[in-house]
This record gives sequence, C-alpha cells and structure tokens, in this order.
Amino acid sequence: MRSGKAAGLTQRPAARFGAAGRSDVDDVAVEEPLEIRVAGDPLAITMRTPGDDRELTLGFLYAEGVIASVDDVGSVAHCGRLGEEGFGNVIDVLPAPGTALAPERVQGARRGTVVSAACGICGRLSIDDLAARCAPIDDPSTIAASTLSRVVTELRREQRVFARTGGVHAAGLFDLAGQLLVLREDIGRHNAVDKVVGHLAFGRALPARGRILAVSGRASFEIVQKAVAAGIPIVASVSAASSLAIDLAARMNLTLAAFVRDGSMNVYAGGARVS
Amino acid sequence: MRSGKAAGLTQRPAARFGAAGRSDVDDVAVEEPLEIRVAGDPLAITMRTPGDDRELTLGFLYAEGVIASVDDVGSVAHCGRLGEEGFGNVIDVLPAPGTALAPERVQGARRGTVVSAACGICGRLSIDDLAARCAPIDDPSTIAASTLSRVVTELRREQRVFARTGGVHAAGLFDLAGQLLVLREDIGRHNAVDKVVGHLAFGRALPARGRILAVSGRASFEIVQKAVAAGIPIVASVSAASSLAIDLAARMNLTLAAFVRDGSMNVYAGGARVS
Repeated sequence: MRSGKAAGLTQRPAARFGAAGRSDVDDVAVEEPLEIRVAGDPLAITMRTPGDDRELTLGFLYAEGVIASVDDVGSVAHCGRLGEEGFGNVIDVLPAPGTALAPERVQGARRGTVVSAACGICGRLSIDDLAARCAPIDDPSTIAASTLSRVVTELRREQRVFARTGGVHAAGLFDLAGQLLVLREDIGRHNAVDKVVGHLAFGRALPARGRILAVSGRASFEIVQKAVAAGIPIVASVSAASSLAIDLAARMNLTLAAFVRDGSMNVYAGGARVS
Repeated sequence: MRSGKAAGLTQRPAARFGAAGRSDVDDVAVEEPLEIRVAGDPLAITMRTPGDDRELTLGFLYAEGVIASVDDVGSVAHCGRLGEEGFGNVIDVLPAPGTALAPERVQGARRGTVVSAACGICGRLSIDDLAARCAPIDDPSTIAASTLSRVVTELRREQRVFARTGGVHAAGLFDLAGQLLVLREDIGRHNAVDKVVGHLAFGRALPARGRILAVSGRASFEIVQKAVAAGIPIVASVSAASSLAIDLAARMNLTLAAFVRDGSMNVYAGGARVS
C-alpha cells in the first residue's frame, strides 16, 4: 500500500541470546511520526504505526471535538511530494465548503481547565471539560460478562501485527453479540482507538450505540474519553484501569470492565449493563 | 506524603465477575494531570501518577534539552494554594539567577523538522534532531546477557504499585553489576523514565555512564531518546522495541535489548557491549 509499510511491520537485524534458534532478522513494529494539520496549520504530532492515517486523523479530530461529523470535512490527504522522504507523514484536513473547524479546541481541552482556577488543574476538571461538550451515555444496551470475555479473547486472536512483532496495541469494535466489526493496530494505544473511531466517522456510524470497544492496553483517561466522545457505551480492557478513567466512566455512564482475562473481570463503572 | 496519594494508588469500587472471591473495593493506579510551567508559562501537560513530580519535571526538561543541568534551575515547586482542589497538579520551574531557559526547544524538537522540508517529517529527521544536540554515546561499558536478564527480573520484583494495581509502568536504573540504584513507577512509561532521569539530575549524576535503564513497557523512540539525552549506554525492555527506537539506538551507539524475559533477549543495537 501507500508507503510499502501498510502492514505495520518491518525488519531489523537482531542478535538473539538464550533462545534455541538464532536469527539475524526480526519483525518489528513500525513507528513513525504523523503530523496532523488543519487547513495547513500544524495541530499535533503523534508517533504512530503507518496505515489508516486518514482514519486516525478523523478519529483524533472527532474525539477532540474539532469535527462533529465527516460532513465537516472537505478532504483528508497526505501532503507533500510523492517520493519525497517522509511523504505520508504529514496529513492535512481541509474543512468542507462553508464549514469552519476549530482546532484551538484541542489546546482548549487540554488547557481550558487552567483558566478556571488561578493555578488549578485536576482530574475532576478534566472530566468537567469533557462533560461540557459530551452528554452522558444514554444507551440501554446490556451485555453478558461471558460475551465481554469472548470479545477480549477474540481481539487478541486477531492482532496480526502483534502476533509477528509483539510491539503494537489493538482496539476492536464489537457488537453486543460479540461480533468483531473493525480492528486496528498501532504502536500507540490511543492511536488504535482513533483509527477505529475514524473508521466509524467515515461510515457515518457515530455515535456508536450498542457497541463494545475492546482494547489491548490499559484503560486510561484518554481511552475512556475517546469512547465517550464516540458514544460507545462499553469499554473492555485486558489490562488495568486508572483512577481517572474509572471516575470519568462513572460520571458519563460508560461501562468499564478491566482485567478481562481468563474468564474473569473487574467492572469499575456502569455495572448495570453487565449480567 | 504531599497529596495523600504518594504511594501512587487509591481505591475504587469494583464488581468482580468470574473470580472465586468477590471484593467490593480494588486498588487502582492514580492518574492525574500535571501541568509543567517554565517561569509561569505553561509548557506541557502530562497524565501521570502523582509522586516525584519534581523529578519528573526535571527529567522531562533535561530530556527535551531545556536544561543542561540542575544548575540551570533556581526552583521547582508546585504552585497554587495549599488545600485548593487540584493543588499539586501544577509545577513551576524558575531559572537559576542569570540563566535563561529555552522552553521553545520542546516545540522545536517536535516541530523543528517541519521547517527543513516543504512538507516533510519522518523518523530519520526526528533522529537528526536529537543527533544535532546530543553526541553519540561514547561509553566502553560491557554487560553480560545474564546480568541484563537479572536486571529486568529485579525490576519486575520491585514494582510495588504494579504488584497491587497491575496498572503502572516502571523504569529502573542499575549499575553494571546489576545493582538497583533507583526505581520509579508511573502510569506513563515515559514519565517513569523522566522521574529516573530527574533523580539523576538532582544528584548531579548525569550523564549516567556505566548504567543500565530497564523499562517495563515497550522501547519506543521516546524512551530511547530520553536514555540518549541522559547518556545511559544500555536500555533493556521486557517488551518489544519499535523500528524507530532501534534506528535511533543504532545511530547513537546505545545498546538496546528487548524481549528480555525468561533468560532470553533480542539485542537490536549496540550488541558489542553484550557478552
């Protein structure tokens, strides 16, 4: 595909110690910077695994509140000269005709809390920031604990780049029957979620009612924030959840299950949806 | 200690499914924002586990090239009113008398590459940026593969917050005999490394020649970048290394061992130091 690295992996020499076999080359996950621009203006740089950059970009802008739907977007395209070194690592978003995008909201979301107190920033204010632009999740979906277990197991089974490199995270969207709808891998946990959300944005499938977001890494504030913005009612993590992720989930009525492994799990918020 | 959360963990209600026992309360890792200011000017916000914030701040500024040593710093202190909500989440760095800090380097390091090509940003340029301000590591240290294995095992054994929460990463500094010198835990992989580097900065122990940095998470570009800035010649990760981390390590003559577990490992760069 575009960069010849779309599979997300590449090879590097490796000297193996202590293993039975000795190989000279190993598959490793690709990490490259992506600069996201809005109307030519640099907004953010993220270290990501190339591939699905347009989805990553749309998902990022959606989660940050810069766009409300794909209709706000005129085009999303890599810029620069094809064949130039680094081509594919800058992507520019142009607003749709008659639409003004507000990329300063990204700074606002991170910095806005500062203006509300002389020298104050804290988790509760971070939660307030999100609550100011997203309604609590109003979704009556319910899910069997056994389905959550199955979903997380399937996420792991379908991590193709991870299987070869051990070096990427994954995010997967499932329906309530546990059917996998879309899976994305990336060296960054949050990027994998952005790619899933961007996929939904392109398909005009947001908010994603009646869906489950399964993640391979820890459930931090940022992961739950992205799920809330996308209207996804249920998040399942194979790993731990942070204090702030739990508080945000509880505030926004999102079901947060963590340590989903070997048939057990801890449900930290929104337990009414789990049977 | 300061916030009552210095241990890095707190409790949240949890409903357990599928486990033999059923507990109502679970230990979880604390995640809270920290805003780093330089002379009152907001520079960065990171989601971190409270504790060792002054070390985190100094380590971050050192790795980004904003300070060259602790002598550049007049004071590092939380600001705001004690007892105010969110106190402890903003920290301000004042330059030493007669010293000017250049926080714009942080933006520069991330954005500087953009000016060197019409629309170009790529991993090689990210590496060039670092090479422009840090010399390759000139450190003749050697290490037995068995010591690297031992060091990573010990890191895991000493992760006290992880043992109770499963939700934090760790970075540990060891000497060449495999003796643990300092260990820090944080919800962010990079923050844990910043805390270790900040500890070294306060102790005027930078560059950290003859030392090993062991990390619990993956070795990404950012982790290797911080090690290079700190002059640490050897990095060992229990998990994978990314393409860009490997390329940076090779360029800067840093020894990078990944998948260090169960007595085996892959050495991707600087293999001459490993016997």
